[in-house]
Amino acid sequence: MTCHTCINAEDGRLSCLSRVPVFTQLSDAEVDLLHSVMQTSHYHKGEFIFREGDRSDSLFVLNRGIIKLTKLEDNGKEHILRLLFPGDFFGQFALLQEKPHYASAQAADTTDVCRIYRKDFLDILRRSPDTAARFMTALSGQLEEADGWAAVLTLLEADRRLAKMLLYFRQKFDPSSAEFTLPVSKKELAGMIGATPETLSRKLRQLTENGIIAVSNRKLRIIEEAALRRLAGEISPQSDNI
Amino acid sequence: MTCHTCINAEDGRLSCLSRVPVFTQLSDAEVDLLHSVMQTSHYHKGEFIFREGDRSDSLFVLNRGIIKLTKLEDNGKEHILRLLFPGDFFGQFALLQEKPHYASAQAADTTDVCRIYRKDFLDILRRSPDTAARFMTALSGQLEEADGWAAVLTLLEADRRLAKMLLYFRQKFDPSSAEFTLPVSKKELAGMIGATPETLSRKLRQLTENGIIAVSNRKLRIIEEAALRRLAGEISPQSDNI
Repeated sequence: MTCHTCINAEDGRLSCLSRVPVFTQLSDAEVDLLHSVMQTSHYHKGEFIFREGDRSDSLFVLNRGIIKLTKLEDNGKEHILRLLFPGDFFGQFALLQEKPHYASAQAADTTDVCRIYRKDFLDILRRSPDTAARFMTALSGQLEEADGWAAVLTLLEADRRLAKMLLYFRQKFDPSSAEFTLPVSKKELAGMIGATPETLSRKLRQLTENGIIAVSNRKLRIIEEAALRRLAGEISPQSDNI
Repeated sequence: MTCHTCINAEDGRLSCLSRVPVFTQLSDAEVDLLHSVMQTSHYHKGEFIFREGDRSDSLFVLNRGIIKLTKLEDNGKEHILRLLFPGDFFGQFALLQEKPHYASAQAADTTDVCRIYRKDFLDILRRSPDTAARFMTALSGQLEEADGWAAVLTLLEADRRLAKMLLYFRQKFDPSSAEFTLPVSKKELAGMIGATPETLSRKLRQLTENGIIAVSNRKLRIIEEAALRRLAGEISPQSDNI
């Protein structure tokens, strides 16, 4: 595990507590308890928080940046399972199941990660059934999202899968802005939607030629959202500008 | 919600407690507590335990049979997200998140389902932190499985996805037997692996012609498991009979 800078700054811990839904609505005593056991680490783009097959004893909460959850395919190629955004927690599989991590967590950007050790985490769950219930709710939400992705991935048309992914990115970054930077390379994006890099390039070119998006390197702007939503199948071809 | 027969039979409740990992290793007091709040329901093939969009206030545990977790696609077609097998629980998303169900649960076979009402379930979690921890572990396991499926679905080749699915069925049914009955129609199976029904038929025919499987209606027998595992990418083309 690479940890570029490990800090215990009050700021980092406070913002983990305030921005992560699992930890909101805590009592003062619970906040004090969490404060005392939380450590903040900083990772540069490309650094691993943990690798597939590692064992670890911590729950991680992403406070700033984006993390790629990746898995080695049978052919040795790395594949992105999903992305984690601020407020998401991860690593609970190795912690709860006491098994090696089934995926690697790698910083896709400059990231701050809060870490709680196993024993402290289980202590908190034991002392605070409300926190335990919120943690289950959040886990259940992650499962719902994973199920949703599986449904997208079985869509037969690559352009529908791409349209869904671009709308997902837009919503995850800043729903008020039509512009965002792709958090992964185009090759990785192709892997995420089950398409070849050539198919992805062709589909992006078609979307650009049709005036639906504009792409410049990794910067992407959605120009015609209604058209993209129609392509994703979210609105019917008859209804316009919903 | 359709419940063909609701029974409170001791047998049904006892076997839910004994076969579901979440409820193993309970103390006598916890077993008594669960017994007092658990209800067993019986569903015929095709009946719905709940439908997408319903609200409900229960956790369900599958005790016997197979359940399809389905979701309506944007085009109104029903799509199978995943299958549930004995010991799996479901419905926690609506319960914990207090939102409508994001999927429907439909009996794919004759099924027995144990049901615990929200208030009783939350009571148990509150009284037994160990049960809460086991429940989280099980949720985390479901998330790991969903992530694994997403990885399979992004495989570019339909025959690799099909091979993975057949090996998954074999392991879920009876790992000691090479024969099983497909729990879904071939059209549904095609949807589950992101292929057209025509592609699925062609791939099944190829596997049959190559002596890897034998198919008779929904009955399927794996004849050459090593070859199927090679096709799935789980063993390299060089290594034989692992």
